[in-house]
This record gives sequence, structure tokens and C-alpha cells, in this order.
Amino acid sequence: MNRVKCAILGGSGYTAVELLKILIRHPGAEVVAVTSRQDPGKPVSAEHPVLLNRFDLPMENFDPAGLKAKGVECVFGCLPHGASMESIPPLLELGIRVVDLSADYRLKDAAIYQQWYKETHHDTANLAHAVYGLPELFADSIRTAKLVANPGCYPQTAILGLAPLVRANLIELDTIIIDSKSGISGGGRTPKLSFHYPECNESVSAYGIGSHRHTPEIEQALTIVAGAPVSVIFTPHLMPMDRGIFSTIYATPKLPLDEGRLVKLYREFYRGKPFVRVRESLPATKDTAHTNYLDLCVKMVRGRVLVLAAEDNLVRGASGVAVQNFNLMFGFEETTALA
Amino acid sequence: MNRVKCAILGGSGYTAVELLKILIRHPGAEVVAVTSRQDPGKPVSAEHPVLLNRFDLPMENFDPAGLKAKGVECVFGCLPHGASMESIPPLLELGIRVVDLSADYRLKDAAIYQQWYKETHHDTANLAHAVYGLPELFADSIRTAKLVANPGCYPQTAILGLAPLVRANLIELDTIIIDSKSGISGGGRTPKLSFHYPECNESVSAYGIGSHRHTPEIEQALTIVAGAPVSVIFTPHLMPMDRGIFSTIYATPKLPLDEGRLVKLYREFYRGKPFVRVRESLPATKDTAHTNYLDLCVKMVRGRVLVLAAEDNLVRGASGVAVQNFNLMFGFEETTALA
Amino acid sequence: MNRVKCAILGGSGYTAVELLKILIRHPGAEVVAVTSRQDPGKPVSAEHPVLLNRFDLPMENFDPAGLKAKGVECVFGCLPHGASMESIPPLLELGIRVVDLSADYRLKDAAIYQQWYKETHHDTANLAHAVYGLPELFADSIRTAKLVANPGCYPQTAILGLAPLVRANLIELDTIIIDSKSGISGGGRTPKLSFHYPECNESVSAYGIGSHRHTPEIEQALTIVAGAPVSVIFTPHLMPMDRGIFSTIYATPKLPLDEGRLVKLYREFYRGKPFVRVRESLPATKDTAHTNYLDLCVKMVRGRVLVLAAEDNLVRGASGVAVQNFNLMFGFEETTALA
Amino acid sequence: MNRVKCAILGGSGYTAVELLKILIRHPGAEVVAVTSRQDPGKPVSAEHPVLLNRFDLPMENFDPAGLKAKGVECVFGCLPHGASMESIPPLLELGIRVVDLSADYRLKDAAIYQQWYKETHHDTANLAHAVYGLPELFADSIRTAKLVANPGCYPQTAILGLAPLVRANLIELDTIIIDSKSGISGGGRTPKLSFHYPECNESVSAYGIGSHRHTPEIEQALTIVAGAPVSVIFTPHLMPMDRGIFSTIYATPKLPLDEGRLVKLYREFYRGKPFVRVRESLPATKDTAHTNYLDLCVKMVRGRVLVLAAEDNLVRGASGVAVQNFNLMFGFEETTALA
Repeated sequence: MNRVKCAILGGSGYTAVELLKILIRHPGAEVVAVTSRQDPGKPVSAEHPVLLNRFDLPMENFDPAGLKAKGVECVFGCLPHGASMESIPPLLELGIRVVDLSADYRLKDAAIYQQWYKETHHDTANLAHAVYGLPELFADSIRTAKLVANPGCYPQTAILGLAPLVRANLIELDTIIIDSKSGISGGGRTPKLSFHYPECNESVSAYGIGSHRHTPEIEQALTIVAGAPVSVIFTPHLMPMDRGIFSTIYATPKLPLDEGRLVKLYREFYRGKPFVRVRESLPATKDTAHTNYLDLCVKMVRGRVLVLAAEDNLVRGASGVAVQNFNLMFGFEETTALA
Repeated sequence: MNRVKCAILGGSGYTAVELLKILIRHPGAEVVAVTSRQDPGKPVSAEHPVLLNRFDLPMENFDPAGLKAKGVECVFGCLPHGASMESIPPLLELGIRVVDLSADYRLKDAAIYQQWYKETHHDTANLAHAVYGLPELFADSIRTAKLVANPGCYPQTAILGLAPLVRANLIELDTIIIDSKSGISGGGRTPKLSFHYPECNESVSAYGIGSHRHTPEIEQALTIVAGAPVSVIFTPHLMPMDRGIFSTIYATPKLPLDEGRLVKLYREFYRGKPFVRVRESLPATKDTAHTNYLDLCVKMVRGRVLVLAAEDNLVRGASGVAVQNFNLMFGFEETTALA
Repeated sequence: MNRVKCAILGGSGYTAVELLKILIRHPGAEVVAVTSRQDPGKPVSAEHPVLLNRFDLPMENFDPAGLKAKGVECVFGCLPHGASMESIPPLLELGIRVVDLSADYRLKDAAIYQQWYKETHHDTANLAHAVYGLPELFADSIRTAKLVANPGCYPQTAILGLAPLVRANLIELDTIIIDSKSGISGGGRTPKLSFHYPECNESVSAYGIGSHRHTPEIEQALTIVAGAPVSVIFTPHLMPMDRGIFSTIYATPKLPLDEGRLVKLYREFYRGKPFVRVRESLPATKDTAHTNYLDLCVKMVRGRVLVLAAEDNLVRGASGVAVQNFNLMFGFEETTALA
Repeated sequence: MNRVKCAILGGSGYTAVELLKILIRHPGAEVVAVTSRQDPGKPVSAEHPVLLNRFDLPMENFDPAGLKAKGVECVFGCLPHGASMESIPPLLELGIRVVDLSADYRLKDAAIYQQWYKETHHDTANLAHAVYGLPELFADSIRTAKLVANPGCYPQTAILGLAPLVRANLIELDTIIIDSKSGISGGGRTPKLSFHYPECNESVSAYGIGSHRHTPEIEQALTIVAGAPVSVIFTPHLMPMDRGIFSTIYATPKLPLDEGRLVKLYREFYRGKPFVRVRESLPATKDTAHTNYLDLCVKMVRGRVLVLAAEDNLVRGASGVAVQNFNLMFGFEETTALA
């Protein structure tokens, strides 16, 4: 079988190394190029020694025509937002399909992008046809997409945690509270005081209260699922651990609900979705670490619905779901290299 | 100055060692006995090497008359609930004052105790006069109390986090959600699989959903402050760190509120309370680690009130506030050995 | 292709779950049974929720004939030492090949076993033909072995770290110091005070000074490689992390050595060994986490040889190398399911 | 009693905040100024929120005459090496005594300073009379010193761990190996990739092999104690924890030694030294965390001497011993504010 030739834009961060760890086990993919703005020429495995003897290709400058000439059919974008929408248009023009892990193509409304990201969107043409890459909800569009906007790490827990409830019209859409806890790798690989080990170790803190950019992404997806406007309170917290997101979600039901029937509703909703596990035991991020699984548990507490959602923010929350999208786009079994 | 002779019941746990670390710096207190059911004769510092050369007294069997004979005026109870209400009555009978760190004397209604702790209360006589030891709210009663029920770790963040709001009648009393995150030491020192290092490290999980015993304690205190019934949803989580509690509290205001005025309200409410710090920056548990401070920050987010509260669960949440209570009971400056 | 039917003895510990995570990706292996003395009937994934929807088979009582009847050709022993040598003889008698992850068949001399493990060896018959399962040194014997004694986690870092030096007769054999640092999972899954989170988190400590049972295992293997008696000082330490071993090894050379030539010696020694990576940069356990790689770096410091070795104690140190042995025994590519 | 007015140079780092936590409890000291090159005007407690309501003074520009005018008698230098020797001379000229926590005045030989620190020493005049501030060895000189060079964190474990042995001439002076493990705070508060949480968490690594600058500091002090040249191999490692150093020290005895007599020798050597605890149980850094104690344990293993030493790198390793030196210099009880 011919392997699909892939490239990764931006090799220095955590999503790139996580992608490589998955793709070197993928029987239908072959990574033939990794780009880097800072360190062209440096082997990927010198930047990330976990890849020594496993992926030693030198990183190279970004050159769309060169990638095309190498036969690249799929590019994974691991650039920061803003940089992504500069690099991706020429790739699409050359007929290369793209899974973009940045936030640049997630929000369909460029005005909302500008409001939350404080930047003008420069590529509204491609934004118009970009597909939001949450396979459990939008697999059909993903299969044929030229450009997939890979979903954010927090939003996946919130959207998949709430989708069965809002689709079934069971909760008041303005009562949703999402209290999320994330490991530090969610903040990226650039050293900053807030991610300096002795600052964030042995500490829990909140950040981005009322202003985190994943808020409109959550609302956009849930509004589509609900067919009515959804507004949420989203409170992210930093936890002293490498990876993992745990979201505790609260909502007020329209009518009294039965926990057993809710569990059944969730199981039915996610039947045939291999990476969502509806559990009766309480989740823990560790049960999902280094996997593409997203674990859900739904409870009734004193008349309120609680949904507990756990995932690995780097795999399910980023690079794993990117490969899941790649599998759909190129006709592989959805679970290839991920189960 | 004559020092107040003190004893500690139950020397093997974390609250005992934390108490000793504070009391050996207290100019007005002297610990003359530490009891242990498992290891009488073993030096405290053999059980807790951090105390080597600092507090080497051997632990002894529990003997109320012996403690009285030694001149003990104050006993700190560090026993598990259930065991406390067996040991404390004879001490009170001998005229020894008690700060009990267990849950046995916190809930005024023995029926509620039975409902949540699945045990019959055997000492309702002393329960009747026990004072709930939250100094910021009940200092006057604490000063003269014979028996102080030291407050729970989680409840302090919830009660002090919400007291200004419920006292001022600003929020709907049935909309309160308390999403709490705790370090592992909150679970005590007895080895269990859920606190086994490789199980809970690098993981976040929820537990006690809808059933945690601190729920009625929070409601009882807030109901007193509100003068009306308060009901809460309380969701505790385990964080991979030694110590610290962070509570994110959500409530719906009765009328639109202004964040600036709320901050002012909180500052006024806690004026003269040396251990509550109303902050404008977002709290982090690390800022309170190894101190008796409880940090609060109040925010308005999309029409909802958010209160963020952080403390050290072993100091402010247990042994520190116990010494704060001791200071009030025996006429010391409230901050002695704690600032 | 027919898959080799496998069983795992002792499903409750960390090596079992790690084995399952590897074997469910192995195209030539199929785990058809997992035994448990404590919890027969309980699904493996109820014990280890990370395996939910991935491996849900119920654990069963140990029954050699039943395993044979199921067509089991290979058993992985994940029992504690002592228990292993009770369960393994009947399997061998039925012609089932065994990779034993306990220490029971590692030490060829039953008297040394008794001296270090304080137990009489009950199965000297099988001990006689057991093969020490370190593939980089003993691949040929492993291929045809009926019983492979999977090597200890610490010993692999020491033996592979020193083998090139002792084989080339470059160091004084009585000057070896092995200072090892291990994550907590090395201590197993049974809760104990020393592995209770608040005891070992944020702490480094030494243990087993002069008495750790991996000492004779290291010496036995190095003595074979050297063709002369080797004696070592081995000092294990506990590190506050889940997994990973880092060994810092010191030895006095017989004659002055050149660092560059040493690096070359190591590269030649490990040519064609896919899981040993000789690095010039300093290793870190994280670079080997969740992989079967063992990283080595050799340095000259003030006339002394230093070898730095890093591995994942659960993968390379136990379950990964067990599958590497399985691959050799059953004719698979050595790297199958591991690269 | 008049308090000694103190100032701290360089308020942004970990040693400054740790000093303040100790000095605000010191009955004979008053910190009247904290300087900062980056953030003059910013309150110390805005930089370090743990100090909120405890020490809120704004940081100020460095102005020796101003400090003198405020009555400052003692300055604690918390600047990086290089910067210290620029700032300290004018203070000494004004008659202000200095405890310098940098490395600038530790090495008596400016040539060795240049060799290891790659900088020319600009203040050899004051270097000549600077006293190495290790109170257990040099208390008499410290009492009258104008300038105390506060000792390094690693060196204290090595020097105090070995002093009894080399003073008694019991070991070969060229066989010493010091294998040290440190928490991340030892690397300071400036964000760098190697201290970025997801890089160093859950990982153990070695660094500075053969080149760490604490090597000559250890050798200089031990050479004084021995009265003969001492050369060591010093291997530092990074551990995933905030604070704590654990050193495992190996040496070859000149003649066979008895462990019991060694313990006695250590106890005698440190009799009357309140902060060195000679233990028979194995040390753990946690037993010393947040204290000024340095724990030692001496063992014989297969003819070699092993010394295990543990301390808190920020307290005993830096700010605690600085206050111990201050206590000696200004006539306070050595343990004031530290026990």
C-alpha cells in the first residue's frame, strides 16, 4: 500500500512530537518533512530526544512548493494561531489537504475571532469552507474536507460532555458552567514564569476567568448541536501535572431527569464512536493518559446534571484527534494508530 | 509567663505533626503529652522524622486523669471521627478545654450527623454546647468555649468565600455550586489504593459526588449567616500535590452586581480579620502553602458571581485554625505562632 | 496469520496492565486469559480503567490445564517472587513457555537466592534451565528458552551500562558504584506508607542501602560478561515521579581512557541492538518514558568513567523487555509492538 | 530591644522571598528595604503573593547611601554572581556588613573563580577578608566578619557530610564521589526550557557533569578541614520537586572502619551544632523541608563509607543559613527564627 506522505509545520512544540509518536506507528502515513522557523537543519530528535533513532529527519524551512514536490498530500499545522493563517493558504492552493491544530479556522465568524484573539482574520476565504474537526459530531464533513480545524483541548470535553443533553433539549441553555482543570503542557513549550516548575508545581490556580478563548469555540459547537444559542461560563484551572484535562460540567435540567436514563441516552448517543467511553465509575485523567479516549460520566446531584469528562490534552485534545481526522480524510479505519 | 500546657490526642497523622510544628514556636503553649493508640512509647519524632531534635517526647496511652495531673489545660483532638466522641467527654468532665479537629462536634443536629456519617452520635450532651470554630464568624463564642469543633478544610473555603454574599442577601440561596480541588494530604495518612503515589500522581479525579460529608457542614454555617436555608452542590476533586485547597464557587445574584462593589464588600466584611486576604489578583494555593491565610477573590462573569478561595488544607484547613482557636480561648493574640 | 495465544498470571499489578497495553497492539499475540487470586471474575478493565473498551475480559482463577485447553502457548508471570515458583512448574510441564517477570528464576545459585530473598528456592529443577532474559546479551538462548527470567528494572541499567567496559576489560572490577534513582511505580501497586502520596511526593530518599536484592543479579550478569568476579555497590533511591530509572555509574579504569573512544566502543557494542541508544547528550528519564529504549551516555570525569543510563522501569524495565523476549521466542521481529 | 535594620538586594528571586519569610518572624531583625533592578516601585508582595499583608514594602533602586541613611546595618545579597561583586564594595565602605548569597566571595583564589565562572574577579580586595559562612565549621570568624560568603546549597551537604571523616583522616582524599539530587528551585526563578514544567516534571536527569561550579567550593572547604588537598567527583542531578537536596557520598577508607564508631564520631563532631542531625534512620529530603536542618547518616557498605545528606536547598542551602550567619554576626542565639 502506498503511504500518504505527510508534513508537519512547526516541529518544536508538544503537539508536533506527539503527532510524530503516533504517525511513526501508522501503517498508512509517512512523515517526509517537518518545518521549523527557529531551527531549520536541526534534527527533530535533537529537539525532542524521545524521538532519537525513531525520527531523526532534520527540520527544514517552510516551502510549500517543495512539500508539493515531495508528494505531500496532508499537512498537519502545529503553528501558533496567527502564524497558521499565513502558512496554510499556499498549501491549500497547491491541493494539499490540511489539519490545522491552531485556533485560526475554528471560529466561523471572523468578528468573533477578532474579539477573542485580538487579531484580524486574514484568510476568511478558507475560513468559509474549513470544517470543525470533532469526528464524533462532524465525521461526514471531515471525510471530504480540504481544511480541518482541529478542535481545542478544553472544548472537546465540554462539547462532547454536553452534546447528548443539548441535542435532546433537556437543559436550560443559559445555565451551563464548565469548571476545567488542565495539566501544564496545555500552555505550550515556550518557557514563561507561570509554567516555571517551582511556580506551578504543588499549586492549583485559576486563569482566564471570563476571557478564555475556548469559550466561543464551545458555544459555537453547542449552538449547532442545540439549534439554539448556548452561552456558557468556562473557568480553566492549572493543575500540577504534565497532561490531562478534567472538566466538571453543571447544568440545570428543564424537567426532572433520571440518572439511569441519562446514562442510557449517553450510551446511545456515542454508540459506534470508538473513542468516547461512557463510564459509570468516576473518571480520572490518568485513565485516559497517552490515549485518544475521552471518558464521560453523567450524574444527577440535587436536581442538577453533572457531567464529568476526562481526556489527555495532547493526544485526544490535539494530536490524537488530528490523526483521527486524518484517518477519516484519507479513508483509513478511524482507530488506525490510535487504539 | 506560664505557658498553657497542652496535649494532642492521636499523634500519628498529618494534623498532629502540623500542630506540633506550630506549637513548638508558640511562646505561650507547651505540649506535654501526645497520645497514640497504635504506638505508645514510640517517640513522636520516630513517627515523624521532621520533628527530630525538635519534639522527641514518646507517645503515650490515652489517660485523661494523667493528663489532668500533668496540668494539661487544653487538648487538641486529632482522632478520626467516631473515636473523638469517645475520648473527649472525660476530658471535658475534668475541666480540660478541647479543640477537636474531627467532625464529631461540627453538626449540631445528631440526626444529620447520623445521615452523613452513618454512625449514631454518642455524646449529644457535649454536642449541644460545642462551638463551631470558625474564628472569622464566631470568635466571641470561641473565646469562652469549653469545646471547639474545629472546622473542616473544604468548608472554610466555601463558608468564608460565601459569607459576605449571603449575609448581604445578594445571591439566590439555592444556586450555589462549590467546585473544590484538594491536595492528597486531605485524605489522611492511612495508606489506601486511591492515595498510592502511582495511582493519584499525574491525575485529576472527582470523588464523593453528591455525598461528601462536608456538604451539611457548609450548609449549616451558611444557613446561620444567611438566616435562611442554604443548599449547595459541592464537588470535591483530588489534585496531584501534597497540600492546598482551591474552591471555585458559582452563584446567581438576585440583582445585577458590580464587581468593584463586591470587592469592597468583601474587604469590609473581613476588615480586622488577619488571616483572610481579599485579593484582586487570582489566587493560587501555593501563595497560601504552609500559612494560615485564606485568600479570596471575587469576580463577576456573564452575570454570575464567582468566588475563588485558596488555603493550605493542613494549616488553615486544620492545625493552623486550631491554634487560632486556641489563641482566642486562652487570651493570646489571634496571630501568635501563625503569622 | 495465527496469533500466539498468551495468558498473564496476576492481573492486578502495574506490569500486567503495561503488558496488556503493549500486547493489544501486537499483531502476532492474543491475550486469552488473565488470572487473579484476589478478584477472579472481575474484568481487567474494572481493575485498570485505562483498559476500558480495550481489554474487558474477566480475570479468572489460575488453572494450568484450562490455559492449555485454550491453546495458550506463552504465559507471562506477573506474580510476586515466591508465588511465581509455585505456579510456573505445572505450566512448563504442559509445554507452555513462560516469561517470568518475578525474581524467582534470575539467580542461578539457589543459595544466593535464599541469602537475599530469605526464602528457600522450591524449583531448582527449572531454575537450572531458565534463561536470563536480557536480549542484548543473551538473545540466542532466549530464542529457544522454555523459561525466561525477565530481568530486573535496576539491573538492566547497570548491566547494559557496564557491559561494554567489563567485556573489554577496561575497568577495575571492584570499583563499581551504581547510584540509581527510581520512580515510585517500581515499588508495586500494594499501598504502603512509604508509597503513600504525601510521604514520598516532594521527597528524595535512599533505601535498601547495601541490601537491595538486585545487587546479586547485577553481579551475576556482569561476572558472566567479564569472565571474572564483579562486585558492586548499588544504592537505590526513590524519586517523586511515576516511572523512570536513572542510574549514575562510576568506575575506575585500569588505564587512562579517552572519552571519544569509549563512545565508539559503546556504539559498536550496541550496533544492531534496536533498543539501546548511545547518546552524546545527557539522558533524562523522560526521553525514555513509555518506550522500550534504554539510553546510555559515557563520560570521563577526572580520570573516572561515568555511565549515565535511563529507562522506563515499567516498559523497558519489565513489560516491554518481556515482549521483546516474547518476540525472540516466537520468531517475531524483535521490535514488534515496541517501536 | 532595638532591631537590626536589614536590607535585601535583589527581591525577585527565591532566596529573597525565603529570607523574608524567616526575617518577618525574627524578633531582632527588621527588613527596611528590598532592592530590584527590574521592578523598582513594585511591592514585594505583588512579586511574591505569598507575602501579601505580611511584607508589602515596595522594592526600590539600589542606593548604598540611602540604605546607610535608613540605618541599615546588614545587607543580604540575593543578586546573581557577577552582579554581587559590583554592588557589595560600596556597602562595605559605608560600614554595612554583608551576607552575600551569591558565589562571588566563596572561592579565595580569584584564578579559580575565573576558571570556573568564566569571569574576572573585580573585587579581590574584599575577597581577601571574606569569610566562608558555614557556621558549623567557621563560627568564630563569622561572628566578626564584615563580609560573609554564604555557602552554596550542594557544597553544604558535601562538606558537612565529609568533614568528620577528613578531619579524622579516615578516608583516601582522592576517592570521593558526591552524587547529588536537587529540586528544581535550585536553578533559580528565571524561566528556561530546562525548568519548564512539562520538561522537568516526571523526569530525572544529570547536568554539569564534571563542570559544576560547586566543585571547587567543596574542594576548598574540605582541603581546609583535611589540611591536605581534596579532589572530588561531583555529579548533580535534577529531581522533579520544588526543593530539597539529597547527596549520596562515597569514599574509600584508609583502614577498615566500623559503622558504629563512625556514627559516634559524627555525633561527637556535631555535638552542640543545633542544625546538624546525625540520624540512624535513612534521611529523606522531606524531613528537612522548610527547615534549617541538615540530616546526615553514615553507613559502611562492602568496605566503602557512604554518607547520606539531606537538606532544604532554599532554607538550609541558602536563606536559612544566611540568617544563621546573621545571628552569629549580630549576637543573637544561633537558632533565632530558625528552630
